[in-house]
Amino acid sequence: MTTVGLTLEQVEELATRAFSQNGCDAENTAALVRTVVGAERDGSHSHGLFRVPGYVAALRSGKVNGSANPRVSLKTPAIVSVHGDNGFTPLAIERGVPALAEAAKTLGVAVMATTHTHHFAALWPETEMIAEQGLIGMACVCYMPYMAPAGGNKALFGTNPLSFAWPRPGKPPMAFDMATAAMAMGEVQIAARDGHKVPIGTGLDAEGRLTDDPGAIASGMLLPFGGHKGSAIALMVELLAAGAVGEQFSFEAGETDNKDGGPPRGGEFMLAISPELLAGPGWAEHCEAFFERFDAIEGARLPGARRHENRLSDAPRQINADLVERIRALCD
Amino acid sequence: MTTVGLTLEQVEELATRAFSQNGCDAENTAALVRTVVGAERDGSHSHGLFRVPGYVAALRSGKVNGSANPRVSLKTPAIVSVHGDNGFTPLAIERGVPALAEAAKTLGVAVMATTHTHHFAALWPETEMIAEQGLIGMACVCYMPYMAPAGGNKALFGTNPLSFAWPRPGKPPMAFDMATAAMAMGEVQIAARDGHKVPIGTGLDAEGRLTDDPGAIASGMLLPFGGHKGSAIALMVELLAAGAVGEQFSFEAGETDNKDGGPPRGGEFMLAISPELLAGPGWAEHCEAFFERFDAIEGARLPGARRHENRLSDAPRQINADLVERIRALCD
Repeated sequence: MTTVGLTLEQVEELATRAFSQNGCDAENTAALVRTVVGAERDGSHSHGLFRVPGYVAALRSGKVNGSANPRVSLKTPAIVSVHGDNGFTPLAIERGVPALAEAAKTLGVAVMATTHTHHFAALWPETEMIAEQGLIGMACVCYMPYMAPAGGNKALFGTNPLSFAWPRPGKPPMAFDMATAAMAMGEVQIAARDGHKVPIGTGLDAEGRLTDDPGAIASGMLLPFGGHKGSAIALMVELLAAGAVGEQFSFEAGETDNKDGGPPRGGEFMLAISPELLAGPGWAEHCEAFFERFDAIEGARLPGARRHENRLSDAPRQINADLVERIRALCD
Repeated sequence: MTTVGLTLEQVEELATRAFSQNGCDAENTAALVRTVVGAERDGSHSHGLFRVPGYVAALRSGKVNGSANPRVSLKTPAIVSVHGDNGFTPLAIERGVPALAEAAKTLGVAVMATTHTHHFAALWPETEMIAEQGLIGMACVCYMPYMAPAGGNKALFGTNPLSFAWPRPGKPPMAFDMATAAMAMGEVQIAARDGHKVPIGTGLDAEGRLTDDPGAIASGMLLPFGGHKGSAIALMVELLAAGAVGEQFSFEAGETDNKDGGPPRGGEFMLAISPELLAGPGWAEHCEAFFERFDAIEGARLPGARRHENRLSDAPRQINADLVERIRALCD
């Protein structure tokens, strides 16, 4: 694979051009660019520029509203509802999170249901946004029917990521953001593009047989991580992100999406909890004593630690050269 | 292994005698017996009579207050706090859940922090209790340092179960209740007792080496299910059950517990969400359409389905004969 080095400023510039020249207004462009730049900054290539062609496809097909004006309202003092106006999710999230955080700081817990949105980014940006306010954050989305439940041979779940962030005053939050699939579809697609095999157990081909060929899995289905237990977590995500929020399940998105390569319409479930109100003063010191124990174990590594290390580097990021060419072509 | 058949009435009678003759008052006995009978009824032997000797040990050593009088209060309209008065958890839960459910029905979401309790039972009784009121329920506890984080070779986490229940009006809830360990310590202990090996990956011996000997794992440590992803879920459980609730982390319980074989002091985190308020009317039909798709997949099985099938049987349950003798001896 040939790569080119792009500074984060160049990533920002390229993504900004791609979105703004394909129907995104300034506010939506800025919100999308923050997720793309943040992903490349943190070393998560599968959520960075790699997503831009899909975003653009969804704008060009008219599936997604590039000038979406998301509306935030309170259903109860503890339920924030965000109607995404059929846009991409990032602007909806940026508008909703302040209300979510305020409710959680007042009541100790609040949820946010985002609907009429199209999610194509990582989830840690929103859970870290919550944790940076001293709150525990959780978020999940479903997607398209890409994954079979454990034991089954038909795709029903999305890759159904779950993100959880824990506030650590004065430090970056502990945050994980993981597909409940054995491997994220973005990673499978990158493996297929780059000609790598994937471990057996990652997924099934279209006939429901185990395979190590990422291309066969991409046209077949993924499997959950961790067998029946991981499958239960994937089911929880699907129920929260669709059933609890009142948006499309992955199977519904599979039936209604126009298959333009961009993200289908879907919802997002978010939860924020105040440890200050729930556990009371002293919670942070109590938890730091735990993290100290964790860090003292040889070989153990807090989730998200690598991402936070990558974040500190201002070196150019190595981006697939074909991808950069493809995005430049989308800007004309 | 020699077993004896006991009807659920006989299980109830035996457990009632064991608790009431070892220092439990009537209310605490009744709450404990409900969890023991419910576990045997549902086929979860590792949470049934198997636990009685541990409960009795904790009563006899004076670690646990058999006449605990748990107190329920509201910290905010959305935070229910239950002080367990140093008793076993079931009575604290039974007293707190009505307030939790009422808050969730009013505000859409509520959390419950239970402290000064000793949890030795399954978690599905409390999450199903929530789901039977039309609410989404989540619960988790930590325990003693029995499990190493993925990549590490020192125990820090408990087996850290997570339970999640989804309301299905007119049907039993979908409910899972799983250790985030590759295998629950109760199952490992039963395998050791019965002379069975366990799969490689279940845990490490005391020197941090992989082994299939359940006895070596019981005196060593468990591993999380599903590698780093399962380890992240175990970490989330530890942080919620101890850090968010303001009770002991597993490592703290390991340092303070008197090692009488009964459960250490610990907290419980519970969450309840109203899909009626969050998603709005029609949520149940929307979700049932999803469950129909799930059930149509050959080989796929909803979590908890086997437990609900076992529940319907009124046949005697086959109980380890030595265990029954041991419990009878505790009643004299």
